[in-house]
Amino acid sequence: MNISNMKDIKERIRNEEIREKITNDFKASLLIKDGMTIAVSGFTPSGYPKAVPMALANRVKKNGDELRLNLYSGASLGPEIDKAWTEVGIISKRLPYQTTDELRHKINAGEVEYLDMHLSHMPQYINYDMLPEIDIAIVEAVAITEDGFVIPTMGIGNTPTFIEKAKQVIIEINLAKPLGYEGMADIYTTKNPPNRKPIPLNHSSERIGTHYISCEKEKIKAIVLTHTQDKTRDLTGVSPVSNRISENIISFLRGEVKANRLPSDLLPLQSGVGSVANAVFYGLCHSEFENLTCYTEVVQDSMLDLLRCGKAKIASATAVSPSPEGLYKFEKEIEFFKDKIILRPQEISNNPEIIRRLGVIAINTAMEIDIYGNVNSTHLMGTKIMNGIGGSGDFARNAAISIFATESIAKKGAISSIVPMVSHVDHTEHDVMVIATEQGYADLRGLSPKERALKIINQCVHPDYRPLLMDYFHRAFSQGGKHTPHILSEALSWHIKYMETGSMK
Amino acid sequence: MNISNMKDIKERIRNEEIREKITNDFKASLLIKDGMTIAVSGFTPSGYPKAVPMALANRVKKNGDELRLNLYSGASLGPEIDKAWTEVGIISKRLPYQTTDELRHKINAGEVEYLDMHLSHMPQYINYDMLPEIDIAIVEAVAITEDGFVIPTMGIGNTPTFIEKAKQVIIEINLAKPLGYEGMADIYTTKNPPNRKPIPLNHSSERIGTHYISCEKEKIKAIVLTHTQDKTRDLTGVSPVSNRISENIISFLRGEVKANRLPSDLLPLQSGVGSVANAVFYGLCHSEFENLTCYTEVVQDSMLDLLRCGKAKIASATAVSPSPEGLYKFEKEIEFFKDKIILRPQEISNNPEIIRRLGVIAINTAMEIDIYGNVNSTHLMGTKIMNGIGGSGDFARNAAISIFATESIAKKGAISSIVPMVSHVDHTEHDVMVIATEQGYADLRGLSPKERALKIINQCVHPDYRPLLMDYFHRAFSQGGKHTPHILSEALSWHIKYMETGSMK
Repeated sequence: MNISNMKDIKERIRNEEIREKITNDFKASLLIKDGMTIAVSGFTPSGYPKAVPMALANRVKKNGDELRLNLYSGASLGPEIDKAWTEVGIISKRLPYQTTDELRHKINAGEVEYLDMHLSHMPQYINYDMLPEIDIAIVEAVAITEDGFVIPTMGIGNTPTFIEKAKQVIIEINLAKPLGYEGMADIYTTKNPPNRKPIPLNHSSERIGTHYISCEKEKIKAIVLTHTQDKTRDLTGVSPVSNRISENIISFLRGEVKANRLPSDLLPLQSGVGSVANAVFYGLCHSEFENLTCYTEVVQDSMLDLLRCGKAKIASATAVSPSPEGLYKFEKEIEFFKDKIILRPQEISNNPEIIRRLGVIAINTAMEIDIYGNVNSTHLMGTKIMNGIGGSGDFARNAAISIFATESIAKKGAISSIVPMVSHVDHTEHDVMVIATEQGYADLRGLSPKERALKIINQCVHPDYRPLLMDYFHRAFSQGGKHTPHILSEALSWHIKYMETGSMK
Repeated sequence: MNISNMKDIKERIRNEEIREKITNDFKASLLIKDGMTIAVSGFTPSGYPKAVPMALANRVKKNGDELRLNLYSGASLGPEIDKAWTEVGIISKRLPYQTTDELRHKINAGEVEYLDMHLSHMPQYINYDMLPEIDIAIVEAVAITEDGFVIPTMGIGNTPTFIEKAKQVIIEINLAKPLGYEGMADIYTTKNPPNRKPIPLNHSSERIGTHYISCEKEKIKAIVLTHTQDKTRDLTGVSPVSNRISENIISFLRGEVKANRLPSDLLPLQSGVGSVANAVFYGLCHSEFENLTCYTEVVQDSMLDLLRCGKAKIASATAVSPSPEGLYKFEKEIEFFKDKIILRPQEISNNPEIIRRLGVIAINTAMEIDIYGNVNSTHLMGTKIMNGIGGSGDFARNAAISIFATESIAKKGAISSIVPMVSHVDHTEHDVMVIATEQGYADLRGLSPKERALKIINQCVHPDYRPLLMDYFHRAFSQGGKHTPHILSEALSWHIKYMETGSMK
């Protein structure tokens, strides 16, 4: 680790008293005791602490220390925590979101309890004291001000709430992150009811808070200097299939503008992460749309490109998390992006109040969808968690338009992403307005369940599965209740068949 | 019909030009043509138009006029519309909610298309032009002001939006409703994004709008005088079982106050309609709680009693809808209630922004619940609609605490209200914090799916079904994914068994 000289340190830790708390990662990790609840900064591999969690994992590995911890975060974390802590078996309960193979495996083996939450619910669960209290918050920062305030790096998540509610705080000053991050955050938090006020945000581009996170100096128990880049996700390539999904979504948006239901600069865009989202934003880069705005959770590579090419003027999010190459480029150009990106606590980025007020266009990925428009975003075959619902529920429920996208098939056609009945519901029929696959899109607004089924089957299902689903629908309609026709003994048979034979066909 | 004298009419219709539009119900009904979309005032049998809809139904019955109409409302309607129009077969599509036997039957027979929507979504679907446009709004009022503004009766619902967006407006002045309603409404509506502003409401007791609904005079095509009382629901008796559920809910709330998670006057209360809700509010009348507030959809008998006994100081809702006896009493005491009840458009009463800001305690009824906390509020055996989701989703998702209540069994024990997997999901595991039955309550906050299952089975399930569910859970855990253990081939078997044998046992 490249520990910088005193001048650097003074620039990063501007308060003398706090500078005296500098220690090493091992010593800081000794603050963490068995049974504690640890909350960490960061959101969707970015801005999470790296050194102290790794030191803890190493300590456990070498000394055989017995520890079981609850782990809270903004969203998913880098391998220095979720992977390393899973490998040494110290996570007892994890919430509200994760994306790590090793951890997912342990959750699905019944060895780690996982609570999959709406990301906007997490900070208020903490503020309302509905979860075990936080013993230690471990927070990454680029700097600490003269007043002892924390300047976060590239993922805000729940950091303001964690610092506020934790008994002790450990801060990692990451010297690998440019000071240019200073000024990108906009920290505004809400009071608990009955004292909560309207959040004074009317446009994605508005700043309503401070560029730092307040922190009582006495709470800071250790400062650790680090020099490690965030391990963000690799760039997901834009496949021809993603491109077709993107074209269908853009074609839908174009139709909305033509019908005067959307302004020509659309409304603020939100998108989940991954290849479809990337494809949509690359598609917008090459579209006729201009003056776009984003009100979302995570700024990915393609959204940076949308800002670069001038098609978008602002992106409001709770984290910047491009691919490793994209991150290198972004940090070199950070001054260009400084007035184009606003990073807010997830309490604000995902707040129903703001999402509904701004009329966000929400584009999220579905794992499976049923013929009536119910969406499963989380569970494989109804039992195994993949990642989690993340912010998709915050956005879909409150959006002006909620779009769910998926490839129509998976596993080379062995799975149809559209099934008679989803094996788990994360987004109900009431929250899903448009479905897009590479086959086309189905605008479900104003349609009854049966009307939705016909549209989805005809416009979104892969041709290999279309006759099978149409057959199910017609047979279901010919028996029993005809509002949402189903044959309960067959409704989940596609999943059962897949588990038994390896194919839904 | 007791048509009043000119003095009465001048008091009720204070604008001369509009007085000249007085006609009879039959003539007004002639404005309604085949293929039209008709939107009506009112919310949960109260404040709906009565004479013109009946005149239309009679016209169809007598003349055999062929008509098919889309019917929009706030929520459920009285028999003069949903029953009468169903019987003459003129409803093509109905949204967003209904509770009428005859209509439900036609929906489940596949003869009427029904769209079951979140009640807060309805006004914005209209404002965003996402639904077929409204040809005629039929609106009940107690009076029309000098300026031609409409003074609504006891159910606001979507009336402001319907009047704003309809091409033509028919107004029924209901002389049976006291003028004392004037002043109870607080009409505030929002602009469409990107011009929407924060809704300036900080407490249930605040008034932020006007006591009338604006209406362009030219749009008013007919005024009809009526003298018919609203056909509200009969009072549902408080059964011993409802009382036990109520005691469990109140006991939970008491624990929250004791743990300092709720103030001693709680937070604003919302409740669905029906016997459990009534029991809870009667229970609160006799509890230690004081200075209560309500931020809800509908004011029922028991909420009026809570205001009468001084335990609650304010009830904000979109409708007053007590039983026929309760309504008679309420209208006699209307001056007493005038500063204690605020009636808002459902756009505001059910707005996620306000519900989350105020930190509402939401108490809604479940039709069935599964062991992981997913709730079905709408579908019998997964296929037949009962009523609809109503506002339960608006409240449960955004509440500070969301409670779902149900009797643990139905049909004299032939049905367990708690099943391995619900046959339809309206509220996902992410939105359900507390479950209460007459057996006890399960506080699910902070629990993983498996932890939730154990708590629900042990604390809420009827003893007759407890061993069966525990057996299912353990066998499911011993195979397959262990995050949300299920045996897909058995997950819906309880429903199938009930349909085949008449019992889940």
